[in-house]
Amino acid sequence: MGTTERRERQRQELRKQILEAARELFATEGYESVTMRRIAEKIEYSPTAIYFHFKDKEALIRELCTTDFLALAFQFQKIARIADPIDRLRRIGLAYLEFALEHPNQYRLMFMTPHPPVEPEEGLLEKGNPEQDAYAFLRATIENARNARLFRPEFGDADQLAQLFWAGMHGVISLHLAKANDPWVPWKPVQTTSKLLLEGLVRGFTCKNTRAAPPSAAKRPKAKR
Amino acid sequence: MGTTERRERQRQELRKQILEAARELFATEGYESVTMRRIAEKIEYSPTAIYFHFKDKEALIRELCTTDFLALAFQFQKIARIADPIDRLRRIGLAYLEFALEHPNQYRLMFMTPHPPVEPEEGLLEKGNPEQDAYAFLRATIENARNARLFRPEFGDADQLAQLFWAGMHGVISLHLAKANDPWVPWKPVQTTSKLLLEGLVRGFTCKNTRAAPPSAAKRPKAKR
Repeated sequence: MGTTERRERQRQELRKQILEAARELFATEGYESVTMRRIAEKIEYSPTAIYFHFKDKEALIRELCTTDFLALAFQFQKIARIADPIDRLRRIGLAYLEFALEHPNQYRLMFMTPHPPVEPEEGLLEKGNPEQDAYAFLRATIENARNARLFRPEFGDADQLAQLFWAGMHGVISLHLAKANDPWVPWKPVQTTSKLLLEGLVRGFTCKNTRAAPPSAAKRPKAKR
Repeated sequence: MGTTERRERQRQELRKQILEAARELFATEGYESVTMRRIAEKIEYSPTAIYFHFKDKEALIRELCTTDFLALAFQFQKIARIADPIDRLRRIGLAYLEFALEHPNQYRLMFMTPHPPVEPEEGLLEKGNPEQDAYAFLRATIENARNARLFRPEFGDADQLAQLFWAGMHGVISLHLAKANDPWVPWKPVQTTSKLLLEGLVRGFTCKNTRAAPPSAAKRPKAKR
């Protein structure tokens, strides 16, 4: 390996370290209170080294949000081909849970940490495109189910329904991430609560006669699961 | 007013200031990263003044948790006399939302901020007593409804059901507190989403034939609302 190549690899490695340190600090200490100096200290570099890679905190949060929201949308793409929209909705819920448990710092930063509005990096994350925008993917799935008249009309439009499903799953996950160690509550496993909540929401929001069978029903083809 | 009385009032006033500053800092910057010095700086007192009132961070979080969880249990006591357990469950959800919107810093500290386990102050908050322990109040309401066979059996025991309802409401509230300013999502009002979610959960978890009517139904007596 030549010198140029090695330097480039070191540069990328440091960039990654900075991003990971920033993500963890923003998620645990709050975006507002973390300084560039604090991030530098955490990885034992000088602030100058950090500024060489990122001009300010805003550049850091922009790159983190772009990367992390794209990763979630990518997770959803694996289930984009499931034809039944209610089944797809269930799988979105489970994919969201899986993402949170595998990447808790990402999840905390994306959904539990207030920060100023962020414009994603140019050309990387197109709002409203279900392949890049996880909310748009959820909304499109809901819209499919609404068009097939699967939802009870009193639960509102596609944005309302998307926010209802999202809030439900976010509640289980974020209580788990913030309070799983609290001995006051005899916690049930997060996976069990998530699956039961998903079933409850599907049952609660869909019409009785058009409701799809839960994934455990025998008539659902195995290939889809 | 005599000197002793004035001093005592000043002492109580400073104590309150310290607690409020600590609550806000713990909730926004994380319990672990906040120091006694940081709390002192925020209210422009010397660290010595703070230590005179609270021996360490643990004493602060213990008092905050005791006060705030008692306040929530007190909020629930207003609805303890509602006889229909499903109706009481709905009202718990709405009282929880109201508490969160009126006391967002309290809510953030209680349910969104990781901290070491806290033993409440001696004799003030008795675990399992629904008059003092908000989780026990929710659980007892669920147990009443379960005893009347109102829930579908597949949604589990009283702890499981309590955590399902709690998670649902927490999801709406905590997304609102963390992300209401995020322009990426066309947010629906938090009150609307909360009420629809409550209805969806009741519909999803209860048996069809025993389900109580939603609060808007004409046959519910007005005196109860």
